[in-house]
Order: sequence, then structure tokens, then C-alpha cells
Amino acid sequence: MSRQSDPKLHEYRESIDNIDAALIFLLSERFKITKKVGLYKKAHDMPPADKAREAEQVRRLRELAEVAKLDPDFSEKFINFVIQAVIRNHEQIREG
Amino acid sequence: MSRQSDPKLHEYRESIDNIDAALIFLLSERFKITKKVGLYKKAHDMPPADKAREAEQVRRLRELAEVAKLDPDFSEKFINFVIQAVIRNHEQIREG
Repeated sequence: MSRQSDPKLHEYRESIDNIDAALIFLLSERFKITKKVGLYKKAHDMPPADKAREAEQVRRLRELAEVAKLDPDFSEKFINFVIQAVIRNHEQIREG
Repeated sequence: MSRQSDPKLHEYRESIDNIDAALIFLLSERFKITKKVGLYKKAHDMPPADKAREAEQVRRLRELAEVAKLDPDFSEKFINFVIQAVIRNHEQIREG
């Protein structure tokens, strides 16, 4: 039996693909809001990054990860990955 | 007015925090399934990584990003970030 036609693996992958679609649509909504934040920060001459806010996000998501039984280190890497993309966007908005 | 007490920024951040909570809980469900995949692959002596599957995931998520109006490059970076964490988990399962 090839890997492609393995019914168990196929079942798992269908669920993974559904979750990934949900993640993409949620991330799109998140970036819609952070775009508004970027424009707001530009209009009010606020810096693109906010270290206190970032630290609070990391702390909160590590806590939520514990509740969700997700590796807190992964949740921290994840939020840092997203925050870095957001800061790049804010910098582009500021310059653009 | 301090940044913390800015009501507009506070409103945006409340929505961002809600979306982040949803993302964490979805990611936890995703890792529950990929853990099962890792155990299944170990039991059937399959390798932790699958390049053809990864390429298909990247292609699909770039397409979904277009639909969701999310930057497709970000979606590709995102899925690669998640896949790398999953492969590390599969390797640990294989060794453990």
C-alpha cells in the first residue's frame, strides 16, 4: 500500500487540512486588525513595536497553551513568529 | 493618554487576543492529530518527513491565503514553521 492510499493517514490528513484552513482564515482576520493598528500607530506617531505588549502576549499565550495542552515553548515561538511579521507590516505602513 | 489606556488600541488588542486564543486551541488540536500521525508512522516504519505532502500543503495554503486575502508568502512561512515543529516531534516519537 502506498503512503498516498493509506486510509488511516488519509483520515488524519483530512483533519489536519481542515484545521489548517481554519488557521489561515483566522490569521487573515488577525492581520486585518493589526493593519488597522499599524495605521492607527502611524496616525498617532507611535512606534511599530511595543516590548511591554509583546511580553504580555508571550506570557498570556504560554498560559493558554498549558490550558490547551500545547507545548508552551511552541506557543511562544509561534507568537514571536507572528509578531515579527506584524512589526514588518507596521514598518511598511509607517514608511509607505 | 498612555498607550495602555488608549481605548481604540485596547479595542483592537482585545480582538487580537481573542483570535490568538482561538489559534492556540486550534494548534493544540492540530498537534494532537500529528502526534497520532507520528505514532502511526513509527509503527509502520515510515520516515518523519514527506516532501511530496509538504509541497502539496504549501501549494494548498497559498491558494487558501489568496481566498482569505492573506499574504501567500506569509502562509507559506507559517506552514513551513508548523511543519518543522511537527517533523521534530515525529523524530522524537521515532527515537523515543
